Amino acid sequence: MSNRIITISREFGSGGRTIGRKTAERLGIPCYDAELIQKLAEESGFSADYIKEEGEYAAGGPLSPFLSNRSMGPTNQDTLWNIQRKIILELAEKGSCVIVGRCADFILHDRADCLKVFVHADMEHRAERIVKEYGERPETPEQRLKAKDKRRAAYHRFYTDMKWGRAQNYHICLDSGALGIERCVEILVGLY
Amino acid sequence: MSNRIITISREFGSGGRTIGRKTAERLGIPCYDAELIQKLAEESGFSADYIKEEGEYAAGGPLSPFLSNRSMGPTNQDTLWNIQRKIILELAEKGSCVIVGRCADFILHDRADCLKVFVHADMEHRAERIVKEYGERPETPEQRLKAKDKRRAAYHRFYTDMKWGRAQNYHICLDSGALGIERCVEILVGLY
Repeated sequence: MSNRIITISREFGSGGRTIGRKTAERLGIPCYDAELIQKLAEESGFSADYIKEEGEYAAGGPLSPFLSNRSMGPTNQDTLWNIQRKIILELAEKGSCVIVGRCADFILHDRADCLKVFVHADMEHRAERIVKEYGERPETPEQRLKAKDKRRAAYHRFYTDMKWGRAQNYHICLDSGALGIERCVEILVGLY
Repeated sequence: MSNRIITISREFGSGGRTIGRKTAERLGIPCYDAELIQKLAEESGFSADYIKEEGEYAAGGPLSPFLSNRSMGPTNQDTLWNIQRKIILELAEKGSCVIVGRCADFILHDRADCLKVFVHADMEHRAERIVKEYGERPETPEQRLKAKDKRRAAYHRFYTDMKWGRAQNYHICLDSGALGIERCVEILVGLY
């Protein structure tokens, strides 16, 4: 396997994005995450904030587009899915890179040169991390994490028909809480 | 994490046992697998063959002990579970080692010095491997693998209440088919 592309799927707060960025830095290749969102925003006409939320999470509540039937055509979220799919395929064509999130693992799953990574950590490590990174909120960090996990898993399931976090869907899964961010980076750099 | 003990949970045919043995060899520590079965056999009075089958797989068919209620006391499989639990705890106390299978990850889950590993591979790699290792059988290798996976997952679920193969239950999960046995050994030796 030449591993030209590394896709990182991750639990919210697990540091998957940091691991992606550091790995890319060490390898001297680009890492797409915020940049990808920006690109999406430009192509779709949606606001960057809207995409950040709807481009990876199942919407909750009675207005969830997941509950609507598609007889009236694709939902906004479907349109976004198609745009992000197209962009990810283009990025993968362009050259070696790390892509964080956005179901890139699924979108690129038939490329032999793609290393599929999943990063997770236990509630304690993630709670500590999100408070440090994103600040305190009215709800507890555990509540925020559980809600995010649930919506991300639902999004993944809906568009990829694959179970998010099932070890068999990835080449390597890493517990960043137990192993530490630096060690995870080491392993990925070593595998490239 | 000092990682004094490495537990390896694995899909049938993924080469997890080989990875365990090679890792232990490189680290100069014992690897328990066949030895563990032998120990179990001695303590329980059951035959080694019986334990090999019942000590890790849910029995199929209408006589499955999973379907019996326990009002008459523990089943043979329950007795085995208790014996193997005791042996694994003793081995872990004795010193550094690699333990393959037998739900050791769950039994030792509250030890801080235990690195929990899951090894898997796709159907193609595993099918090739089991035909090479265990020979041809009347059923196809895919049928054998599916039946084994199902029973192992059911066994794990019953005794540990944890989902087998869920990335979050392990510190590291490795696709031995994509990464190769030697690379998996490298990573585990590096993490120790």
